[in-house]
Amino acid sequence: MITSTGNAQVKQAAALVKKARYRNEQKLFVVEGPRMFGELPRERIVCAYVTERFLREPGQEKMLDGAERVELVSEEVLRAMSDTQTPQGVLALVRQYDYRLEDLLQESRRTHLVILEGVQDPGNLGTILRSGEGAGATGVIMDAQTADIYNPKVIRSTMGSVFRVPFVRVEKLDAALSLVKERGVKLFAAHLRGETSYDREDYTGDIGFLIGNEAAGLSAAIADMADAYVRIPMLGRVESLNAAVAASILMYEAARQRRSLGQIPGKSDKKGQNL
Amino acid sequence: MITSTGNAQVKQAAALVKKARYRNEQKLFVVEGPRMFGELPRERIVCAYVTERFLREPGQEKMLDGAERVELVSEEVLRAMSDTQTPQGVLALVRQYDYRLEDLLQESRRTHLVILEGVQDPGNLGTILRSGEGAGATGVIMDAQTADIYNPKVIRSTMGSVFRVPFVRVEKLDAALSLVKERGVKLFAAHLRGETSYDREDYTGDIGFLIGNEAAGLSAAIADMADAYVRIPMLGRVESLNAAVAASILMYEAARQRRSLGQIPGKSDKKGQNL
Repeated sequence: MITSTGNAQVKQAAALVKKARYRNEQKLFVVEGPRMFGELPRERIVCAYVTERFLREPGQEKMLDGAERVELVSEEVLRAMSDTQTPQGVLALVRQYDYRLEDLLQESRRTHLVILEGVQDPGNLGTILRSGEGAGATGVIMDAQTADIYNPKVIRSTMGSVFRVPFVRVEKLDAALSLVKERGVKLFAAHLRGETSYDREDYTGDIGFLIGNEAAGLSAAIADMADAYVRIPMLGRVESLNAAVAASILMYEAARQRRSLGQIPGKSDKKGQNL
Repeated sequence: MITSTGNAQVKQAAALVKKARYRNEQKLFVVEGPRMFGELPRERIVCAYVTERFLREPGQEKMLDGAERVELVSEEVLRAMSDTQTPQGVLALVRQYDYRLEDLLQESRRTHLVILEGVQDPGNLGTILRSGEGAGATGVIMDAQTADIYNPKVIRSTMGSVFRVPFVRVEKLDAALSLVKERGVKLFAAHLRGETSYDREDYTGDIGFLIGNEAAGLSAAIADMADAYVRIPMLGRVESLNAAVAASILMYEAARQRRSLGQIPGKSDKKGQNL
């Protein structure tokens, strides 16, 4: 059992929790708590750190099946590794994903992308992945200014969708979008200059939604790459919606249209099987 | 100029920032930063605290017109009062609102309520108010377990909607909902047991959406008061959406239906005039 917070593994986990650069050098990230740990694909787990208390609870030991390595740690050590005040008995070092843009553009599925430029808030980013999985998005493209997807706050707010929705972070968003457009994907920008209400466009083909920074919106250069601007009508004195809300409303409008044409299923049995 | 962090006014502001009970005893709350300060109805401002640097910027002094009282404070004092690491030169003590349930049920407007049971995250609560104003919600009803609406994080994430959307906090949610139902408002619960997809119900009458706690959802007692359960279809392995996203998708579906019937305007000129 690891009982010293000076242990090298403890320090490594704490650094992975705190530092985006270290995460990306090591190609690892940290997943905490039984809920998110349970959703992790087993083969990605490099090491699971668990407390005795965690192991004593019925059924928990079985959760560790398939992990490459398991280490027992004291409660104090787990707290030192963790991003949260009250870690819930389990924390894992996990291998990062390595999707290519190509993985987000498979011909077997009608493309439904979310493209993020400078989305800063980890909660927004995570929530966009969560809604995206629910609405049937086929992938998320992020520029280098968007929050780090492996930030523990992002991971938590995806509620596990980060393990299932393909994503890529690109250095040059404009180049990536040129490629996406060459593949016939029509890009819609949520933009204050949009004349057409979001629910009046057709999202049943291959599409992508462009979502900008929380304060500044989309840059002119990226907004110019859109095939169409759309507007989410706002009453009162609201100037914009929360970025995750705007993205979710657009993705769910696409889902609504696709359901009505039978392109995507209308029900889910909550076990991952689409009926 | 107040230069001591030991000053009674400084301590009062700091306590109002931190403690919900103190806010509710004093019937005050704190608003920070030029953006939110600018949106404040002037007559609610009990005292505005500003730094010299803030006053030196062009046009800022005019922002103070209408405030009952203005105090100059040092940068250090403003930091001691503030909820944020880098307060932006202005902070105000503001009188709380005192809406009655009746204010949310005016016959002149088609009722569109959001009803929250135990929504815990301040960001979610604030975002629901922001989306609610945008979608034309006529009011928000919260139970006593919902986060305090005067929490600075809530205020910030409303982006000013908290100053414009009527809201009430009720001790007994079931009693409030009985009254709402007596007034002919049809209640829809976002619920996993919902058989009907949310976009297949008619929201063009007087309606309210019931939104539950982030983890536990709605209690059985409150869910039983709904006239209908609706389901937001979720693909993949998503079990639920973020509470603010779910509320926003429902409110915007109501807005979409109401726009198509001309019940609410389709465009806004971004100055608060609905065209």
